[in-house]
Amino acid sequence: MVSGEFDLIETYFAGLTRPRADVLLGVGDDCALLAPPVGQALAVSIDTLVEGRHFAPGADAFGLGHKALAVNLSDLAAMGAEAAWFTLALSLPRIDDAWLSGFSRGLATLAERHGVGLVGGDTTRGPLTITIQVHGFVPPAEALRRGGARPGDLVYVTGTLGAAGLALLVRQGLYAAPEHLGELFDRLDRPEPRIEAGCALRGIASAAIDVSDGLAADLGHICRASGVGATLYLDQLPCGPGVREYIAESGDWHLPLGAGDDYELCVCVPADRQGDFEHAAARWGHGATWVGTIDARPGVRVIDPEGGAVAVGAAGFDHFADN
Amino acid sequence: MVSGEFDLIETYFAGLTRPRADVLLGVGDDCALLAPPVGQALAVSIDTLVEGRHFAPGADAFGLGHKALAVNLSDLAAMGAEAAWFTLALSLPRIDDAWLSGFSRGLATLAERHGVGLVGGDTTRGPLTITIQVHGFVPPAEALRRGGARPGDLVYVTGTLGAAGLALLVRQGLYAAPEHLGELFDRLDRPEPRIEAGCALRGIASAAIDVSDGLAADLGHICRASGVGATLYLDQLPCGPGVREYIAESGDWHLPLGAGDDYELCVCVPADRQGDFEHAAARWGHGATWVGTIDARPGVRVIDPEGGAVAVGAAGFDHFADN
Repeated sequence: MVSGEFDLIETYFAGLTRPRADVLLGVGDDCALLAPPVGQALAVSIDTLVEGRHFAPGADAFGLGHKALAVNLSDLAAMGAEAAWFTLALSLPRIDDAWLSGFSRGLATLAERHGVGLVGGDTTRGPLTITIQVHGFVPPAEALRRGGARPGDLVYVTGTLGAAGLALLVRQGLYAAPEHLGELFDRLDRPEPRIEAGCALRGIASAAIDVSDGLAADLGHICRASGVGATLYLDQLPCGPGVREYIAESGDWHLPLGAGDDYELCVCVPADRQGDFEHAAARWGHGATWVGTIDARPGVRVIDPEGGAVAVGAAGFDHFADN
Repeated sequence: MVSGEFDLIETYFAGLTRPRADVLLGVGDDCALLAPPVGQALAVSIDTLVEGRHFAPGADAFGLGHKALAVNLSDLAAMGAEAAWFTLALSLPRIDDAWLSGFSRGLATLAERHGVGLVGGDTTRGPLTITIQVHGFVPPAEALRRGGARPGDLVYVTGTLGAAGLALLVRQGLYAAPEHLGELFDRLDRPEPRIEAGCALRGIASAAIDVSDGLAADLGHICRASGVGATLYLDQLPCGPGVREYIAESGDWHLPLGAGDDYELCVCVPADRQGDFEHAAARWGHGATWVGTIDARPGVRVIDPEGGAVAVGAAGFDHFADN
């Protein structure tokens, strides 16, 4: 049983630090002192998960530890950056040893897989809120920015889409899926950041983003930043068996197009780099699928299997909209 | 009136970015891309303020913007680092234009004074929680670590102690101070991070920490990290007129010794660097005062004006203790 802030850090989070030569001074001083590699840009991103907003009260602590780090690592992946360090700001209502133990194990398991070390943090009493900042490295000229897409580029997505959204429907009691449940919930609760794919796309992709707000909305971010538009083909969207069944039963194509939380990468590839891209993608277990094309007309258009235009309703997840 | 997350960032926080040559890509992509200077360590620190824990509901938004950044810059100061960039993770219950406007102006005013630019952030709906991470630079060999104090070193504090604690007593209705009210509340609500002092102490101080948990507790952190002890002299503690009156009336020395939130620096200086230290300190408006000495016996001892030992009760602010 730990009794206060200092014990808490020592007991649960000291094990998340890693012996990295680029950590000159880790957790425990006023600041961490870090040595970024010369010639690389430092890529940073910060993201918060709030109880009742991003996850339900009582959500599994191990999964939360995993997901809080995963959504941040996903931002590094979308930039083509390798992961190096993270910091954690944790507000929690009380010291709950079982919760803290599960949470820190969830963090540690994913952190170890990506070689990323905890270098600082703050713990305080308050409503359950988890903020993580990640730090990674990428050669600045090869970073996968949102603004580099050009008309004629091919649009790909890694892995499959819609599984996290379907898991949420099942968890909310809005859809009864007879099978694939474990896999579905893993996609929602334990997304796998596509760091390996992001790093492999340096110098190949013209733009990338991670699919957190839904494919149509996130591709829309790329289009606005690049001053271009895009056309997506519904029958090309890669979906797993659970999502395919759901679509066959409901006729609702919104999941792979608009549901958030997939944390796949949406990648734009110049046509003359298609061979290099597919060569790289062949090495990933999760693969990548061509889903559309960049063009000059602003906006994102979606074409159904009969060649008709699909109305894209929701503009993606907005944290202040009532969704 | 802004209606969602993307507008919110654009409206209130875009003005916090700064044209710095070392910001390759700022707010708006999956990550910021930053170029730390070669040969310097990157110093990072993350801190959270929670409504109801660190500040009362209804607290002035401008002051919160100032304080949320100030407590983080104070960590850079305690490391001897110059400030460069910050990120902001903000959870708030609803979009309140007046609050956001005040908060962002409070942030911007302090950020401009220290030349620090916003490079990333996340906004989400939730209980009011403000997390900031700061990033600064310091030559690694000159960083002011906690572990460098040695027996014989002199202990100094910048500015004055206890004013923030007294302001809290007044605000809680536990003490009626007739005068100095504006100044007192400024010390609590708008602490000034001692960045200039911290940078000037590179190569002079052996150890430093910022006084956030109370002088005795924070000096205790230095002593534990350095494997030493310290003796403090009550009649040397620098206090402003309000705190002196309070002590004269109440006989309670706890404020300058144990109250947190002062955000002054506690600095250890080898005896042979005393001249250099006092030469540097003479240039600061807030000055610095000798308050004690590092010795070999573990623990922090406090000596009253008659030469007797004072019991140091509270071990400093612990976010999970019921204080």
